[in-house]
Amino acid sequence: MKDNTKDLMIIAGPCTVESYDRLYATAYKLKEMGIKYLRSGAYKMRSRHNSFQGLKDEGVEILSRVGKELGLRTVSEITRLDKIEYMAKRVDILVVGTRSMNNYPLLEALGIIHNPVILKRGFAASYTEWHASSEYITKSGKTNVILCERGIRTFEPQTRYTLDMSAIPVMQQNYNMPIIIDPSHASGKRELVAPLSKAAIACGANGLMIECDLDPDSCVCDAKQTIAPEVLQDILSFIKRVKEAENGK
Amino acid sequence: MKDNTKDLMIIAGPCTVESYDRLYATAYKLKEMGIKYLRSGAYKMRSRHNSFQGLKDEGVEILSRVGKELGLRTVSEITRLDKIEYMAKRVDILVVGTRSMNNYPLLEALGIIHNPVILKRGFAASYTEWHASSEYITKSGKTNVILCERGIRTFEPQTRYTLDMSAIPVMQQNYNMPIIIDPSHASGKRELVAPLSKAAIACGANGLMIECDLDPDSCVCDAKQTIAPEVLQDILSFIKRVKEAENGK
Amino acid sequence: MKDNTKDLMIIAGPCTVESYDRLYATAYKLKEMGIKYLRSGAYKMRSRHNSFQGLKDEGVEILSRVGKELGLRTVSEITRLDKIEYMAKRVDILVVGTRSMNNYPLLEALGIIHNPVILKRGFAASYTEWHASSEYITKSGKTNVILCERGIRTFEPQTRYTLDMSAIPVMQQNYNMPIIIDPSHASGKRELVAPLSKAAIACGANGLMIECDLDPDSCVCDAKQTIAPEVLQDILSFIKRVKEAENGK
Amino acid sequence: MKDNTKDLMIIAGPCTVESYDRLYATAYKLKEMGIKYLRSGAYKMRSRHNSFQGLKDEGVEILSRVGKELGLRTVSEITRLDKIEYMAKRVDILVVGTRSMNNYPLLEALGIIHNPVILKRGFAASYTEWHASSEYITKSGKTNVILCERGIRTFEPQTRYTLDMSAIPVMQQNYNMPIIIDPSHASGKRELVAPLSKAAIACGANGLMIECDLDPDSCVCDAKQTIAPEVLQDILSFIKRVKEAENGK
Repeated sequence: MKDNTKDLMIIAGPCTVESYDRLYATAYKLKEMGIKYLRSGAYKMRSRHNSFQGLKDEGVEILSRVGKELGLRTVSEITRLDKIEYMAKRVDILVVGTRSMNNYPLLEALGIIHNPVILKRGFAASYTEWHASSEYITKSGKTNVILCERGIRTFEPQTRYTLDMSAIPVMQQNYNMPIIIDPSHASGKRELVAPLSKAAIACGANGLMIECDLDPDSCVCDAKQTIAPEVLQDILSFIKRVKEAENGK
Repeated sequence: MKDNTKDLMIIAGPCTVESYDRLYATAYKLKEMGIKYLRSGAYKMRSRHNSFQGLKDEGVEILSRVGKELGLRTVSEITRLDKIEYMAKRVDILVVGTRSMNNYPLLEALGIIHNPVILKRGFAASYTEWHASSEYITKSGKTNVILCERGIRTFEPQTRYTLDMSAIPVMQQNYNMPIIIDPSHASGKRELVAPLSKAAIACGANGLMIECDLDPDSCVCDAKQTIAPEVLQDILSFIKRVKEAENGK
Repeated sequence: MKDNTKDLMIIAGPCTVESYDRLYATAYKLKEMGIKYLRSGAYKMRSRHNSFQGLKDEGVEILSRVGKELGLRTVSEITRLDKIEYMAKRVDILVVGTRSMNNYPLLEALGIIHNPVILKRGFAASYTEWHASSEYITKSGKTNVILCERGIRTFEPQTRYTLDMSAIPVMQQNYNMPIIIDPSHASGKRELVAPLSKAAIACGANGLMIECDLDPDSCVCDAKQTIAPEVLQDILSFIKRVKEAENGK
Repeated sequence: MKDNTKDLMIIAGPCTVESYDRLYATAYKLKEMGIKYLRSGAYKMRSRHNSFQGLKDEGVEILSRVGKELGLRTVSEITRLDKIEYMAKRVDILVVGTRSMNNYPLLEALGIIHNPVILKRGFAASYTEWHASSEYITKSGKTNVILCERGIRTFEPQTRYTLDMSAIPVMQQNYNMPIIIDPSHASGKRELVAPLSKAAIACGANGLMIECDLDPDSCVCDAKQTIAPEVLQDILSFIKRVKEAENGK
């Protein structure tokens, strides 16, 4: 059977690397389900200095090892200038987080590496500013930059941020860039991840980045927005059906 | 062939009633496409006093006549206390617009009529406040109230409002109410209506309310966000495919 | 001694009329302090239908009586079309609340009465929209319309709304309209009322509208943002000093 | 005569260092007016990569030289980890700009230097997040951190940002930290700088940071929000009068 989801970039994995065993177990399950991109954090950007800050270099090494052992492409956040070279050698795709979208020295330095870069939208950045930030990365010729909408800050308190679905057609149409959606950080709520993921695909998104773990409740970070593999499976099945229906029209 | 879209409330029509002939022509086309709900405005809420304010009673009469002639259920906005009885007799479904979501005397009075009421979200209302407004209508026992998300005000200037897709699962799950989406007023841009409509359906919306006209460019109101019937057809085809795929799973 | 505050419109009083005795006692104290405008609510706009909705006509009568007995000009909110004539006869100044700024039928009808009208800013209205709403009142020649900034909705949860101080110079300079400030509803916090009031005066505001009661903690509405007379006295003393300093420069 | 403004930190200067001669001329005038803190940018954070990015090291050297020659304390923005040591040696007070408020690696590194640090509020940061960011700087014992409110992002397009005056009493009362106001970046409009500055002082701010230049119109950055010395003089006179009035009460 033809795999209709092959052009979509579906990235999944736990918020943060906690241990080799834990990451391997989840990654193994994700691979079984057909996932090709494994995400997890090593250098974390936490609002509070006394929150868990990630395993740092050790986390990078674990992610890299699990990726290699399972043949998954790895995805992780780069948070500081002095770690670009180190991480670019060990992680396949680097992510600029929402808090770093305006860190122009970091963006400029990422323009030189070969790895694809995912540029998350600053949670209060306009489309114009987001695109302008992407140009700090691409100004020297780099082309493999992917945008990621992860929710913007609004007055609504029941969701962590407000996922701005219009960003998908606008960034594709106006700026000719691929864009994926992160429904986990956008909503901050596990029960919203599946409906928002399906909506994003129907809207034309080029992919998804989802927090997923074998045992979401025990995650040290973002437990409330992390989904179990069964929920991810439901999303993947929906994508397949929609893509088949579209191809068969 | 089974009509998989029958449970969705798909409402379409021009922003405002301009003349009997014009409304009839568009409504005839919509009916051909399978649309069952015809929307159009007679009493308009315009930010500027010197903008076109609608045909008022004459507009209500035209809408009512076209609806009866074509067997379409009619949908129109109620803007003032002293017109509730008049409109309730002539229009099937009354809409409380975004600017009236906090007009509690109006909401209270709508609790007494039998017509279904669509309650649009105030463009700066939280989920909680929106639900609280719905209770002004339902407190005396009325049950046929439908919510409509139509975009919230954010800092982003490229879209008129930001469509908050998360409202769909939240209002359904937390408040057990049906919710439809208005992608036209949310985006203010014709080219965003199809992707947002598809996203809304994939997200689980109970319907759509879309501004559509045979000749969008010549509409006196909201021309830039009004779509042509072919675009609506594309949306309807998508819905059919998705629903078939879901039913066939 | 010259009263330097005479050109400022300082309005004070309890959020809502609870009884003749209670209102009289507070109003008497306010008059002693030099206050000339007494505010209090009779028709209330409450987010929840089961919150206290005001004493309605009875509240209007009490406010009117206390105003006459003490020689204070009365200020109260008008919430519905069918009460304009009634209230215009009994209350000196009518207030259009933040939830009614887009109630264009109400605004239009207020253009015909002679009483001054205070138009509060919709909590998500731009300066342009606010001014456009004022034109619904002034289009037939009415001139005694006063704007009132009362905070806008932002992402910040520690204050009820965010008081937008820039509205003072912008509305004065760009639209040539007088503007007063309501620090009580803006902040939702008693301890912020004095600093925001002083700031507003220094910024050039034409007046203040402040919730004040002899016994703030026992108020049925808005207790947390209502100040005691001593705090109001501190504000009045600051205003006097600043005005004297300005006049003496 | 007693100088009642001595406890306020009034910082002024051009947005960016353009040349030694230009900076010296403005700084000389500011010193004449009693200003003790000279601000100017060398490393700039510009939304667009092709906007003027500042004179960088050369700008730092010029600022440092002018400061020493005139006996003014210098204030400039630090934008990258690898320049902290360099700038800390040459500039008296380092500023963390709004775009860097969530750059935790930068904040942490600033905790080690002795220079005072001004932490601007992220333009979409809550009070809580802002304070949490300050703790990245103070967690190792540093105490000389000053907050700076510079406007938050809202839906209002006529001002660049919305100055949140409530931040002054909230950050002072709830977090016991000094806070200054930047009316220039907040408003983006020269004509709003004086009223907002006066308001901030009346509200209890611990100081101001204002963009000022001898010839505002010819500034390469932020010309529209830069004031001339005469406007600054008007602000300083107001401050003096208010402080005298307060002390004499």
